[in-house]
Amino acid sequence: MAAYFKKCQDKLGFVPNVLAAYAFDNAKLETFVAMYNDLMLGDSGLSKLEREMIAVAVSSQNRCYYCLTAHGAAVRQYSGNPLLGEQIVMNYRAARLDRRQRAMLDFAVKLTSQPWGVEEGDRERLRRAGFTDRDIWDISAVVGFFNMSNRVASATDMRPNTVYHGQAR
Amino acid sequence: MAAYFKKCQDKLGFVPNVLAAYAFDNAKLETFVAMYNDLMLGDSGLSKLEREMIAVAVSSQNRCYYCLTAHGAAVRQYSGNPLLGEQIVMNYRAARLDRRQRAMLDFAVKLTSQPWGVEEGDRERLRRAGFTDRDIWDISAVVGFFNMSNRVASATDMRPNTVYHGQAR
Amino acid sequence: MAAYFKKCQDKLGFVPNVLAAYAFDNAKLETFVAMYNDLMLGDSGLSKLEREMIAVAVSSQNRCYYCLTAHGAAVRQYSGNPLLGEQIVMNYRAARLDRRQRAMLDFAVKLTSQPWGVEEGDRERLRRAGFTDRDIWDISAVVGFFNMSNRVASATDMRPNTVYHGQAR
Amino acid sequence: MAAYFKKCQDKLGFVPNVLAAYAFDNAKLETFVAMYNDLMLGDSGLSKLEREMIAVAVSSQNRCYYCLTAHGAAVRQYSGNPLLGEQIVMNYRAARLDRRQRAMLDFAVKLTSQPWGVEEGDRERLRRAGFTDRDIWDISAVVGFFNMSNRVASATDMRPNTVYHGQAR
Amino acid sequence: MAAYFKKCQDKLGFVPNVLAAYAFDNAKLETFVAMYNDLMLGDSGLSKLEREMIAVAVSSQNRCYYCLTAHGAAVRQYSGNPLLGEQIVMNYRAARLDRRQRAMLDFAVKLTSQPWGVEEGDRERLRRAGFTDRDIWDISAVVGFFNMSNRVASATDMRPNTVYHGQAR
Amino acid sequence: MAAYFKKCQDKLGFVPNVLAAYAFDNAKLETFVAMYNDLMLGDSGLSKLEREMIAVAVSSQNRCYYCLTAHGAAVRQYSGNPLLGEQIVMNYRAARLDRRQRAMLDFAVKLTSQPWGVEEGDRERLRRAGFTDRDIWDISAVVGFFNMSNRVASATDMRPNTVYHGQAR
Repeated sequence: MAAYFKKCQDKLGFVPNVLAAYAFDNAKLETFVAMYNDLMLGDSGLSKLEREMIAVAVSSQNRCYYCLTAHGAAVRQYSGNPLLGEQIVMNYRAARLDRRQRAMLDFAVKLTSQPWGVEEGDRERLRRAGFTDRDIWDISAVVGFFNMSNRVASATDMRPNTVYHGQAR
Repeated sequence: MAAYFKKCQDKLGFVPNVLAAYAFDNAKLETFVAMYNDLMLGDSGLSKLEREMIAVAVSSQNRCYYCLTAHGAAVRQYSGNPLLGEQIVMNYRAARLDRRQRAMLDFAVKLTSQPWGVEEGDRERLRRAGFTDRDIWDISAVVGFFNMSNRVASATDMRPNTVYHGQAR
Repeated sequence: MAAYFKKCQDKLGFVPNVLAAYAFDNAKLETFVAMYNDLMLGDSGLSKLEREMIAVAVSSQNRCYYCLTAHGAAVRQYSGNPLLGEQIVMNYRAARLDRRQRAMLDFAVKLTSQPWGVEEGDRERLRRAGFTDRDIWDISAVVGFFNMSNRVASATDMRPNTVYHGQAR
Repeated sequence: MAAYFKKCQDKLGFVPNVLAAYAFDNAKLETFVAMYNDLMLGDSGLSKLEREMIAVAVSSQNRCYYCLTAHGAAVRQYSGNPLLGEQIVMNYRAARLDRRQRAMLDFAVKLTSQPWGVEEGDRERLRRAGFTDRDIWDISAVVGFFNMSNRVASATDMRPNTVYHGQAR
Repeated sequence: MAAYFKKCQDKLGFVPNVLAAYAFDNAKLETFVAMYNDLMLGDSGLSKLEREMIAVAVSSQNRCYYCLTAHGAAVRQYSGNPLLGEQIVMNYRAARLDRRQRAMLDFAVKLTSQPWGVEEGDRERLRRAGFTDRDIWDISAVVGFFNMSNRVASATDMRPNTVYHGQAR
Repeated sequence: MAAYFKKCQDKLGFVPNVLAAYAFDNAKLETFVAMYNDLMLGDSGLSKLEREMIAVAVSSQNRCYYCLTAHGAAVRQYSGNPLLGEQIVMNYRAARLDRRQRAMLDFAVKLTSQPWGVEEGDRERLRRAGFTDRDIWDISAVVGFFNMSNRVASATDMRPNTVYHGQAR
């Protein structure tokens, strides 16, 4: 994966610490990167900004310092709206979201905090806000992924690169 | 991935429904299977049974019908102890675990329900129970993985293959 | 109560451990058995299966190993549907219940987890699902009884007879 | 049970509304009264005041208006200390309890709010505070009983006799 | 503030212990008294009784012994209804409130227990129950004030004057 | 209070929106400002930075967008450490605090989320970390104040001045 790290360095100017953390084992790094890239950068009915908004809303629920820092910066960058990133870190209900994005984050937060209570009625609310069943899969997969990453980061005291803090303020 | 499904059929006698659910998109199926196989079947200081015990304890906290059914069966099989599988489904504190496995599941359940509160003291407790830092990574990665899978399964109403129910009773 | 134990032995093939636990004092055993038999086996607008379903849904909320084991077996037996017993143990929302039984278990779980919040609106929902006021009493009394039994069992580390695990799989 | 009601009227000056509520069915009234009298008035290593203190601490956790009113009055009467009754209604930690009674109520409140987490360590704390295993049974049985009664009372909107409010102020 | 204490003594017959607690620093006492008097005794669309009802409902949520005792007495006095004071201490849902006061206390309790979830829909419910936007400010300010006072009282083990217990029974 | 607003404008370059919100009534504005200035700027054994750290830790627990924004900026400014402000917003446990400040924030968060459970043992922990009883009062008063302000801000949808977002990054 040295080539991948080189690519991060060239494109971002740094290698995200999460990748350094996984790099002790090449198989683990590769499966993590493959899943991340597919979910966050691959084809989807959700924009990249929307996927990052989900990442931050989930990480706020789980109070994950690493992911709030890294993905908060991504929301600020993709949206060109520094306040939006802060609002989703602090309380997504404070953001002035349109109906689609509000429904998306309400679902993300319920699936994070009460996964046992998610049922057909919740999916129906997403459909009424304009999401397809494939979109619902993608929302769920991103919610799931950050519920995984938040826990790996907290459990191993992963620390975000300092550079994120100043990005897109 | 048709070859992989064939292999499942030959080895298990069926294709787990979770794989069928992911199969609408080959990239998603491959990354899921790669991560699953590395975590649950790859080299680790944790036995395969221990990894399945974590899967069930996490899924019990999240009340995930799919994962409790499939991985509860795995605990019954790997341990040769049908009661152990039931106990971890219902309340892992009811199982008569040795100190190592109890510490492992206490950590798994705290990381599931209060990820924000996991700190050095929690890792220290695992070390005192005999786990290395690499083991702590593996525990955390399995906890993370099932916090992801539980949510994808609940969000999409995934249903376990009926065959699991009767296995290893 | 020796005659009663004999009757259990003849009818069930064993004496449930809960009875053995109460048997240190005849008055306590008698009042427990009298209340149990009236509630679970006496006349009611609820079928015996429905009363056992409530027992399991309540015990799942309280994560009571004894009661989930013994009454999970009873749901499997009365319903002739092994999956139903497992589903209510794990997450009753995963069971495909009709409107009546879903309303009944929703009420049971709310009364278990937030008894302070149960009000006329909750009773009204039961009535709209077809229950009479007498039925509501019976549901409430069974919910209450298992909120008692779950706590006595957990507080005294009561262990279910091993035989339950294999019943009606 | 008419004789029993007569006895209540003679001794207390009124028939507690809970008995009136159960009186629609003689079998239910009899089993309730038999269990209540055994637990709250029968032989025990716990004083009657201590059993009433448990009743109030449990009912405060469940915010049961009926039981807090009726048993709050009982604590005021048995203790001759009106403040003690109020304190346990409001927050038992505010009462200046000796070590034995504090351990007893800590156990009662944990068994009420997290029955799944009660284990040998909790019983051990009671033993260190001077309780025998029989006492632990009695504490648990009273905790269980009020977790039942609180729910039957809330579910059926049971209202306490007005007379309790003014007693032993 | 000696004159103010004299006024309390003359009017109430005692100096509330909360004032004695703040009296170690004149500036702190004065700002506390000024805010209290403005909020609880100043002009408002809420009656003094309604403001005391909010005080008690909030303090019940926070289980504050001092405030439940002092303001429970105030509800009994202002309402001339001893039961109402007890009901709001125990569980405000048990009181037979009109629509306006029920909406007011529902809002107060939600703002106390889940301040992050209060949104326009919650304010809308208050408006539909007849409250103006200025009333909503006053409700919120009283809720806020007792969320402050409850914590100062609990943190410093403040004890209510004994005289409150017997008032207006 | 026009003079005070003028002073804010001269000193800060803007009038904090919270003051504008209170300005509809001079008495309310004055009591709020007086209490705020005494608590946050007056003499205390706590530094101004420490009082702001408490403000942010409490506001994070209550997920208050206004207070996290305004006081997060204050922590960044007073500490000269932009990361510290972010960490306390996200999860104060992620900050590398010394023993004194960690004990202070642990107390603040417990008093915020479980005020009913704060007892002598909690105060004792603060004393062992070097705090006097007067310091404990000041910590509690600041915790109380922000539990008030968070709720007034959330209840009235108060929005922070945009300028805070870019300060001291």
